[in-house]
Amino acid sequence: MKILGIDSSGLVASVAVVEDRVLLGEYTTNYKKTHSQTLLPMLDELRKMIDLDLSTVDAIAIASGPGSFTGLRIGAATAKGLGLALNKPLVEVPTLEGLAYRLWGSSNLVCPIMDARRNQVYTGVYEFPEAETGPEQEFEHVLRPVVAQEAMDIHDLLEKLGRLNRRVTFLGDGVAVYRDVIRKDCPVAFSFAPAHLNAQSAGSIAALGAVYYSLGRTVTAAQHQPEYLRKSQAERERDERNEA
Amino acid sequence: MKILGIDSSGLVASVAVVEDRVLLGEYTTNYKKTHSQTLLPMLDELRKMIDLDLSTVDAIAIASGPGSFTGLRIGAATAKGLGLALNKPLVEVPTLEGLAYRLWGSSNLVCPIMDARRNQVYTGVYEFPEAETGPEQEFEHVLRPVVAQEAMDIHDLLEKLGRLNRRVTFLGDGVAVYRDVIRKDCPVAFSFAPAHLNAQSAGSIAALGAVYYSLGRTVTAAQHQPEYLRKSQAERERDERNEA
Repeated sequence: MKILGIDSSGLVASVAVVEDRVLLGEYTTNYKKTHSQTLLPMLDELRKMIDLDLSTVDAIAIASGPGSFTGLRIGAATAKGLGLALNKPLVEVPTLEGLAYRLWGSSNLVCPIMDARRNQVYTGVYEFPEAETGPEQEFEHVLRPVVAQEAMDIHDLLEKLGRLNRRVTFLGDGVAVYRDVIRKDCPVAFSFAPAHLNAQSAGSIAALGAVYYSLGRTVTAAQHQPEYLRKSQAERERDERNEA
Repeated sequence: MKILGIDSSGLVASVAVVEDRVLLGEYTTNYKKTHSQTLLPMLDELRKMIDLDLSTVDAIAIASGPGSFTGLRIGAATAKGLGLALNKPLVEVPTLEGLAYRLWGSSNLVCPIMDARRNQVYTGVYEFPEAETGPEQEFEHVLRPVVAQEAMDIHDLLEKLGRLNRRVTFLGDGVAVYRDVIRKDCPVAFSFAPAHLNAQSAGSIAALGAVYYSLGRTVTAAQHQPEYLRKSQAERERDERNEA
């Protein structure tokens, strides 16, 4: 099974190809260029470097939100275009699950936070319990949501983590924004994920997408819509005008 | 602090740049092309994509072995050439530590295995205990070797893991070779790392290299030599001829 992964939900632009247990390639950048300047050129470059025939992929896994509205739209447009042209299904991987999956097997709760402005974060809380997998002694860590993804005030999140009362590892672009708030107010022991594991990665989206693909969780290119979790600023302003 | 990471110790070719807590970019392929065809073109491509001025890096972190003899030599030649031209120090990151660091924060023992032929693996056993880091409640996971890296018979490794008597996660290219042996003979509960975390990555080398750099563990470009752990086939044959 071969899965193309795409993540442009945040500052990171990332493409990757996973075949069964092997990451064939991944190209990730976190730079001020826009995703429309980076995402397709990176995919094209990677495709050439590993002689990838795109028609051989089984599905396209896409970080489906939440995230930057423009980023999600560029990712969705890219994935939908590829899916339509190649006649392949899409696998929607919630952005925060893809982030949490970077810390597969963590001993702590995993709490990705993405800056959602106005003191809010897009967040969720996850854990990696062990599931038996057939042969004696063998186990897998599976991603399990403890708190499903939502937009939340950072202090509400910290209060919720206090009630869960377990050690937690934070990652995501919200860490740079809320590091001091966390250090001051987090009621449980916490750590921050290191640089190589603390942001979006299409390898993670492709690997988790492969799990969801094998469970039959696919949509058509036409069906896919990003999950914004919140209204865009333009929509909020329109609603406020209509209410006024 | 900005660290360029390079790993060509195995089938994977990978380059990455980490600045403080941010992975600025990573380009990784696992494909049958030789590293001399991939490594420098990938670095050049990444450099252009993120407008990286190579003279701004503080050090070059290199997966220093063990691994494929040719791969290590290409990596070393690349790192030494860059270090010499840019007048920057090198940071040697043992290959197996770089692999283990992919599973930062794991709740299990982490056991990277690299196929060394003749029923042997290059391996080590690592854990991620928590260290307090200044502010109340904050901790870091640090990489701690439980068994330092060495070349070992796969069955000796499994016996050693049995004595350690803790759950273990395997990763590395040795998994594809010894998966059935592990399933049959591993005396403790075990899992295999998923695709996005189970092979070499220059992001991991750069992130761990940054830790070692801050501890002052650098060498000059001229000093760096790969750590092969074993003699090459040509050397073994010469020794055998000399003994005969």
